[in-house]
Amino acid sequence: MSTDSLQNDLILRAAKQQPVERTPVWFMRQAGRYLPEYREIRKRVDFLTLCKTPDLAAEVTIQPVDIIGVDAAIIFSDILVIPEAMGMNLIIEENKGGPRFTNPVRSRHEIDMLLDLEPIEDLRYVLDAIKLTKQELNNRVPLIGFSGAPWTLLTYMVEGGGSKNFRHAKEMIFNNPNDAHALLERLAQAVAKYLSAQIKAGANIVQIFDTWGGILSPDAFEEFSLRYIKQILESIKRNDEPVIVFCKGCAHALDDMATLGAEVIGLDWTFDIGKAREIIDGRTALQGNMDPTLLYSNPDRIRQEVLCILEKYGSYPGHIFNLGHGVLPDVPVDNVKAFVNTVKNESGRYHQD
Amino acid sequence: MSTDSLQNDLILRAAKQQPVERTPVWFMRQAGRYLPEYREIRKRVDFLTLCKTPDLAAEVTIQPVDIIGVDAAIIFSDILVIPEAMGMNLIIEENKGGPRFTNPVRSRHEIDMLLDLEPIEDLRYVLDAIKLTKQELNNRVPLIGFSGAPWTLLTYMVEGGGSKNFRHAKEMIFNNPNDAHALLERLAQAVAKYLSAQIKAGANIVQIFDTWGGILSPDAFEEFSLRYIKQILESIKRNDEPVIVFCKGCAHALDDMATLGAEVIGLDWTFDIGKAREIIDGRTALQGNMDPTLLYSNPDRIRQEVLCILEKYGSYPGHIFNLGHGVLPDVPVDNVKAFVNTVKNESGRYHQD
Repeated sequence: MSTDSLQNDLILRAAKQQPVERTPVWFMRQAGRYLPEYREIRKRVDFLTLCKTPDLAAEVTIQPVDIIGVDAAIIFSDILVIPEAMGMNLIIEENKGGPRFTNPVRSRHEIDMLLDLEPIEDLRYVLDAIKLTKQELNNRVPLIGFSGAPWTLLTYMVEGGGSKNFRHAKEMIFNNPNDAHALLERLAQAVAKYLSAQIKAGANIVQIFDTWGGILSPDAFEEFSLRYIKQILESIKRNDEPVIVFCKGCAHALDDMATLGAEVIGLDWTFDIGKAREIIDGRTALQGNMDPTLLYSNPDRIRQEVLCILEKYGSYPGHIFNLGHGVLPDVPVDNVKAFVNTVKNESGRYHQD
Repeated sequence: MSTDSLQNDLILRAAKQQPVERTPVWFMRQAGRYLPEYREIRKRVDFLTLCKTPDLAAEVTIQPVDIIGVDAAIIFSDILVIPEAMGMNLIIEENKGGPRFTNPVRSRHEIDMLLDLEPIEDLRYVLDAIKLTKQELNNRVPLIGFSGAPWTLLTYMVEGGGSKNFRHAKEMIFNNPNDAHALLERLAQAVAKYLSAQIKAGANIVQIFDTWGGILSPDAFEEFSLRYIKQILESIKRNDEPVIVFCKGCAHALDDMATLGAEVIGLDWTFDIGKAREIIDGRTALQGNMDPTLLYSNPDRIRQEVLCILEKYGSYPGHIFNLGHGVLPDVPVDNVKAFVNTVKNESGRYHQD
């Protein structure tokens, strides 16, 4: 998929640390409940139906481009579509404690019984949504594809949902590490195939989300998470589409992450982006990293924080502005707009060479 | 309170980076639900009654010394006794989502209405429990006192309990930072008085718990948490009793924490203790840092992890072994014993000079 014709390719250039006129900005979960237009659609369909209905998924994917003016769309979907396609029974009931699987996978037998993922068949609805979104975006901005990282997928599959202490996932890696590796191997292959298919369908850039990498000790993170992200990066089929790796709570591993083969490392809000840039030292671009709860504050305070983050990153190439985690469902739309507009209006001074 | 007569003062020596024969070990929440002897007492009294009944508090405080063989006792109490003593209505119902306050503090008026803490009157039951525990311990091991850090206390007081995104606490620091500072100032004074009173009552060492420091960006952590911990360290009345500062999820600030004036920095399990030692570079001792969920595994795996952490810390003075967070309520007692025994039996080789 050629990107020559994109009217706004700022994110792709920033991802490759090429010159840009200003810092590009998008945010995780930008298509979601804080938008009245999204809530309107959700009155008619539940979350999973929305994911699985390409024309509706495309519609909500494009909403933040039109309403907020972000520099990229990210395909509306969920990281748990992979385990569901591998045979797990996924239930997402809003206001009932997050997604869950009725049949958690904890034994080697249960792992072996999982289906192999064939994205073109099993996740055709995502690929169709990507194609439709690309058509409707009409080259205005790039489209971001995404997947959960193997470790994060494992936690949901083994716990059967969200968790406080991740007891079952931890028991698997400590007591039966070979089972964990068998599952992670399957997931790494599935993720690589899935992201390759998303790129083939038209995604201009893809992000791997490791939401739960931060619950691991550094050694365990290396063994059970990073190893498989690296494997994905080695086997993903792509031309010049960049890959973003976002591991929440894992800034301790920035130096390792710089060598994964990803173009961009996503940073949550609990680490100084100026220090991160020094550690990364030009090996990748950086994405982030405003505290998502700042969108609860007010336009002045948000402006102050955006300026602070821009100044910390400084006049270096390779910054994609984002929150340090997903946008929260009940933030005021005007605050989100203030955030995007400040990045757009104030970042040019850092890109004058 | 002289420590000359303590039969086991390993933790005090390690805290001061003095030579020890082996690495000392205790763990956060060591008096708790994983012990059948503790559960037996809890059948008769609820959690808060236990905190407020000195002879029972002393009894459960000493249980892990007798049963597990840890190198220190930590007084059985809760960090939320300070806000309760300042006039908040504390409710702790087990299995009902953690402690909560029925009257959260969110406005300047509500902050101004809080009472000043007079530990000798308001928290006499803690001081009495410390005196009684000291008597009953009969100098076998040191007694640790503790308090929540101002920031962590603020989160519970403002949220009215636990929280997912800490929206109200974040709104206060972003929208009304002066209110937050007014509250933190009050809390820092209260904590300093409370810890001074605990030391006067017989605590040989005290720990400040900042459980929620890790939800802040580094700048906000500096402004709303560390500043007040430093203030406590400047005003606490003590002779040679060491202070441990434990901030969960804050390894990004290790370099700053080394200059607080605390003898020991507690480290959670998400940062390499060998790297932490290099950053700290002898300015403080370090406490930690095994993943608490490892106690769900088995004695062999626990032994392997203990050896790994001992090796990472190496032959330097100033290591107090601990988990990276509190012991979980449902771990097998035999695993806890295996953890303690491995530290005791295997750490001598790192202390042969």
